[in-house]
Amino acid sequence: MNRRVTLAARPEGHPRESDFALVEEPVPDPGPGEVLVRGLWLSLDPYMRGRMSEGRSYAKPTELGEVMTGQVVGEVVASEDRRFAPGDHVVGQLGWQEYALARGGALRKVDARIAPPPVWLHVLGTTGLTAYFGLVDVARPKPGDTVVVSGAAGAVGQVAGQLAKAMGCRAVGIAGGPEKVRDLTEEYGYDAGIDYKGDDVNAALKAACPQGVDVYFDNVGGALSETVFRRLATGARIAVCGQISQYNLTEPELAPRNLGFLIVFRARMEGFLVSDYAHRFEEGIRRLGALLADGRIRYREDVTEGIEHAPAAFIGMLRGANRGKTLVKLA
Amino acid sequence: MNRRVTLAARPEGHPRESDFALVEEPVPDPGPGEVLVRGLWLSLDPYMRGRMSEGRSYAKPTELGEVMTGQVVGEVVASEDRRFAPGDHVVGQLGWQEYALARGGALRKVDARIAPPPVWLHVLGTTGLTAYFGLVDVARPKPGDTVVVSGAAGAVGQVAGQLAKAMGCRAVGIAGGPEKVRDLTEEYGYDAGIDYKGDDVNAALKAACPQGVDVYFDNVGGALSETVFRRLATGARIAVCGQISQYNLTEPELAPRNLGFLIVFRARMEGFLVSDYAHRFEEGIRRLGALLADGRIRYREDVTEGIEHAPAAFIGMLRGANRGKTLVKLA
Repeated sequence: MNRRVTLAARPEGHPRESDFALVEEPVPDPGPGEVLVRGLWLSLDPYMRGRMSEGRSYAKPTELGEVMTGQVVGEVVASEDRRFAPGDHVVGQLGWQEYALARGGALRKVDARIAPPPVWLHVLGTTGLTAYFGLVDVARPKPGDTVVVSGAAGAVGQVAGQLAKAMGCRAVGIAGGPEKVRDLTEEYGYDAGIDYKGDDVNAALKAACPQGVDVYFDNVGGALSETVFRRLATGARIAVCGQISQYNLTEPELAPRNLGFLIVFRARMEGFLVSDYAHRFEEGIRRLGALLADGRIRYREDVTEGIEHAPAAFIGMLRGANRGKTLVKLA
Repeated sequence: MNRRVTLAARPEGHPRESDFALVEEPVPDPGPGEVLVRGLWLSLDPYMRGRMSEGRSYAKPTELGEVMTGQVVGEVVASEDRRFAPGDHVVGQLGWQEYALARGGALRKVDARIAPPPVWLHVLGTTGLTAYFGLVDVARPKPGDTVVVSGAAGAVGQVAGQLAKAMGCRAVGIAGGPEKVRDLTEEYGYDAGIDYKGDDVNAALKAACPQGVDVYFDNVGGALSETVFRRLATGARIAVCGQISQYNLTEPELAPRNLGFLIVFRARMEGFLVSDYAHRFEEGIRRLGALLADGRIRYREDVTEGIEHAPAAFIGMLRGANRGKTLVKLA
């Protein structure tokens, strides 16, 4: 049997476990051109919260009763596409489920000799590529710049900080709680870590960024970002990657306000989606792979076992309970 | 005697006439290297509101008792700098006063044969150059783009819309009240005008920009901008020129909020100051001058006579009472 997690209800504010359903169905057989994949690891990411709600965005919402969207790395079990053979490791948008059918064109082979399968879901996958294109293409830091990352201990943030260091920058991370903040400097090579839950962020930023913030890689948004904006340097660049502080708000806030700081600092703020860089993923994977091989990118995984626990792990991640990249081990 | 307007008190919220003082003093004589200028026209601009308050910004605040900051075009009366002779027309930051002493290096000669003196304070002056560099360098519209301008009937906005048309774009202006909105299409060549005071702005934008907003030239900020952001096209560019809706707020608002739209539309938002382009003013003046000579840029001036009425004219402009570029005729 194939166990899958579907969307049972549209959440109001923070999702609850009752917004999800665990359903079982027979494992399907591949038709012509299709590949049957047994999932090994499922990636859980903040963007999924957006898909649970209706409303205009860059992607269609998940329908009620539909399997939750998610990227999976797995192993080919049966294939009616000659490009794939049983035993191949592949990655694709296969959803929150143990088995999935996919068209061959929707899968990408991954080389488990370069990195273990789950790494293709983070450092060499979407979150690593998000950090890569957001920093290299959107923020474009120069050597010697001070780069501040919010959500710095998360899947994207941990790579963004290490990439900033690899580009000759000073990296300052902001995360929630002493454990994550310790990881910033001890695991991910940040020059300084700030605990937004425990520290006076403005004072800590002032101390950690005496020349101001040249680049801000924002995963969080809201009041925390407002504090960072006050400490920008002239000519600052802001890559808007995520706004996790906003995803579970039930009341839309009147916004945006006080964007005059963009004038004062002649700052550039730019949003991006990693999917727009799909034609350059090989470039990103090659560079991230080289840094990984050199030990210049390290990572931490936060692993939950069993598809049935995916909703709780996802809810925890949205509340910041994860320490590193959130993964569900499927098999 | 020289009549001058000084800052008497720091305003709370909207400035009042009692925040200004009219003082008289003898007309000074120029010392070595100095030039005495008799002001002809004074420019009134929203940025002056910022100088009246204390607090960190891109320029130092005006001190209490100091003459108000402002650009003036005038005529040289006496000169101890051999580059200037009596009768020359010059422009400079001479302040709200009828006569001013300046170092020769702080003045720029203007050619009254190319355009009448007051035009060097707007289309061929700071506000025209602000529109030019904000549009050409910051927003960078492409032919066929839909360009929305807020504060579209103001000194910067009227030039921005006509420049957008000259660059092959569709121009949509937003202004307050039926008279200004009529000027948008009848005087300044906008394809459509929206009255933010009388229209349903979201519906009007939807009708005027069926393909979405590719470029937003923002002079206003606040809730109006929020409405524009909802109608952006993918890959939109926002030049943040001014935030006049925010300048008279006494309570700082928590901000910014809901910047997720930058991700959804992969939009770029960038602030700028015209003073950063000082090395390229000649380029801007040459291009604006050519469009003016061709009749492709038209303008409207809102003239008040007498330095003693400058405070009332300034207060009115901040409330949107002006129709076109706000000027004070000094002599």
